Amino acid sequence: MKNLKGACIFGQSGGPTSVINSSAAGVFIEALKQKNITNVYGAAHGIRGILEEKFYLINEEDTTELELMKYTPSSALGSVRYKLKNFEDDPTDYNRLLEVFKKYDIRYFFYNGGNDSMDTCNKISKFMKNSGYDCNVIGVPKTIDNDLFGTDHCPGYGSAAKYIATTLMEINLDASVYDTGLVCVIEVMGRNAGWLTAAAALANYKNLGADLIYLPEVPFDVDKFISDVKGVCERKNNKCIAVVSEGIKTKEGKYVGEFTASTTDLFGHAQLGGVGAMLANIVKEKLGVKTRAIEFSLMQRCAAHLASKVDVEEAFEAGSAAVRFACDGETDQMVIFERQKGDKYVMKPVLMPLEKAANTEKTVPLEWITPEGTGLTEDFIKYALPLIQGDAKAPLEDGLPRFARLKKVWATK
Amino acid sequence: MKNLKGACIFGQSGGPTSVINSSAAGVFIEALKQKNITNVYGAAHGIRGILEEKFYLINEEDTTELELMKYTPSSALGSVRYKLKNFEDDPTDYNRLLEVFKKYDIRYFFYNGGNDSMDTCNKISKFMKNSGYDCNVIGVPKTIDNDLFGTDHCPGYGSAAKYIATTLMEINLDASVYDTGLVCVIEVMGRNAGWLTAAAALANYKNLGADLIYLPEVPFDVDKFISDVKGVCERKNNKCIAVVSEGIKTKEGKYVGEFTASTTDLFGHAQLGGVGAMLANIVKEKLGVKTRAIEFSLMQRCAAHLASKVDVEEAFEAGSAAVRFACDGETDQMVIFERQKGDKYVMKPVLMPLEKAANTEKTVPLEWITPEGTGLTEDFIKYALPLIQGDAKAPLEDGLPRFARLKKVWATK
Repeated sequence: MKNLKGACIFGQSGGPTSVINSSAAGVFIEALKQKNITNVYGAAHGIRGILEEKFYLINEEDTTELELMKYTPSSALGSVRYKLKNFEDDPTDYNRLLEVFKKYDIRYFFYNGGNDSMDTCNKISKFMKNSGYDCNVIGVPKTIDNDLFGTDHCPGYGSAAKYIATTLMEINLDASVYDTGLVCVIEVMGRNAGWLTAAAALANYKNLGADLIYLPEVPFDVDKFISDVKGVCERKNNKCIAVVSEGIKTKEGKYVGEFTASTTDLFGHAQLGGVGAMLANIVKEKLGVKTRAIEFSLMQRCAAHLASKVDVEEAFEAGSAAVRFACDGETDQMVIFERQKGDKYVMKPVLMPLEKAANTEKTVPLEWITPEGTGLTEDFIKYALPLIQGDAKAPLEDGLPRFARLKKVWATK
Repeated sequence: MKNLKGACIFGQSGGPTSVINSSAAGVFIEALKQKNITNVYGAAHGIRGILEEKFYLINEEDTTELELMKYTPSSALGSVRYKLKNFEDDPTDYNRLLEVFKKYDIRYFFYNGGNDSMDTCNKISKFMKNSGYDCNVIGVPKTIDNDLFGTDHCPGYGSAAKYIATTLMEINLDASVYDTGLVCVIEVMGRNAGWLTAAAALANYKNLGADLIYLPEVPFDVDKFISDVKGVCERKNNKCIAVVSEGIKTKEGKYVGEFTASTTDLFGHAQLGGVGAMLANIVKEKLGVKTRAIEFSLMQRCAAHLASKVDVEEAFEAGSAAVRFACDGETDQMVIFERQKGDKYVMKPVLMPLEKAANTEKTVPLEWITPEGTGLTEDFIKYALPLIQGDAKAPLEDGLPRFARLKKVWATK
């Protein structure tokens, strides 16, 4: 609906990224400019903050701190994993949301997250419409996993991909200094989509990458894995770098990670390992070579010091475009990125109906995976390389990043 | 000896760092300027490259690539862990070294490494002297562990410390996004010296650090650890970040890491865990909270993209000073850093006899550790903060670091 006048609220949901706060900055800075938006609220811990009436008055924040949010990793407002029940099953949350929206005259709702969060956003959008309550609802995409349907890519992916490629290049140099053998098995996030693991191929493009890359898109076979590693070791003086997704599955569809041990250490306590650690141990036992398992762990999603400038700017743009679209009267949509045709990389934010984004999963096209199943084609490089361009990070203060410091003044009514 | 004319050879030894190649660049660029130095050789894999007559002609390298070495992590020439026997026990290696030195007219020997490497350097220095072969020998310090005796600090430490502090700040933000509890146990390198683990305190200085820090300098007690974590969890809504050194030991002097399990996974293969993973599992079992074990692994020593400018420049200076000292006639010494008195941080490279550096170990002063044994005092911050200042990294090419590419032309005679 056009010319809606009232407050806006923005929430962050799901796992954080290096640039999720850049989208928040985009929403806030744009919303503060819009004359139809009376108040700008930031929900603490996403939808839960709205249900519990816990949100911050963004109008009280300093512009310089909002600008610094672009370079501050993680969800500054707090995040949440909260699945809204279907309205038919339990209308409690929906009625409560409507109550809060009315109380604070919230006419613009922006929600930032991945597929689960877009499901939430979609449900709220449909409910508000059905209730006859005028509220423009726009989803803002976010996920390092890059698995949202419809969009060329997701804010957050470029920076995580840049972290993985850069760090892999550094590890490649480090792991090769001795003349003795070493097999490194590096575990990367990404659940059922191999986009992040595929980013290892960007380091290969610089000849400092991985010998073997295993995506969840290709069924994983331990015997083939050992045979692959053995082949590399024979060619390369017992040196091999293998990158595996946490989400690799056997051909029966069982996560390889589920095979990791739950055993006890010498103190008698349960001990669990990741997929990478498990595979490294199998290599050690089967091939008798030195191994090292490395997990990129939380670092791959929060290393804002290594963010991609393109990603930081696009994440900001996704947020500010959401506000502009909503103020133009759009609702029930998610911002997506449309790559423009031509040699030069140009991205345009456009809209897609929310229900198309909810609960979908986009995986790496099988034709971008090399026939032997352990590498990526040139098409993937062409796709991913523009997303990791440039540096953009927080200024230094005492040699350390100066992240945003929000006042976080509670809204009350 | 002054006015020695002949070739020089430089070797890298021990575990690599983010800035070890900056010292190499310092040696090479300075040596190429010196008119008494006829040829500049870089030994492949340290002392082993000399024994096997495998070294590169640095005179053949482009200056721009030598400059890029400043920002290229890991040992570009290859490293080695090779312990020279005592001459009395086995003179073979010594006689071979002398043979190679004579064949290539090597009159300057520079060796870059930590305490073990300085032992090698010291032995060679004494042997050449006793053999009556004129050769100026200077050691160049290097170790992320910062445990070399005599020097204010070691090249490599500042960058690793900056990585640890910056990454901890980012993880601190990431680990706090959900309203639910999470105990992170982060494992840091450093063997018997807690310098690297102590760097976590630099993030505390920015209020985004660790709740608990465990150095090897303080005997480790699992029950106290659990009680410490429990205390933090009670105060902070089940949120706690603990940073532990890989080298923590029980009061009986046994490495806590030795207690990790060697058990089998569901494939029947041996499975080993690190100290951090083990402690995280104990916390999970004892306190029933969600835990995450994070290892900074190789990244802490090779993350050149996050190097400290001070460290990069000092590492370079350590190398170039070594050459200038040797050309001035100094020998049988190691370059050390002397911090100048006064408010402003000024470092001066001076010399110390090699035998003082060999096989020694400098640990964190106990008076810099807080009484409860889980934090660092202001004195440590004052010591370490100047070492992590500024950024210095490789230029970007396609969004990824453009590391040095050496031609590596073999020397022959």
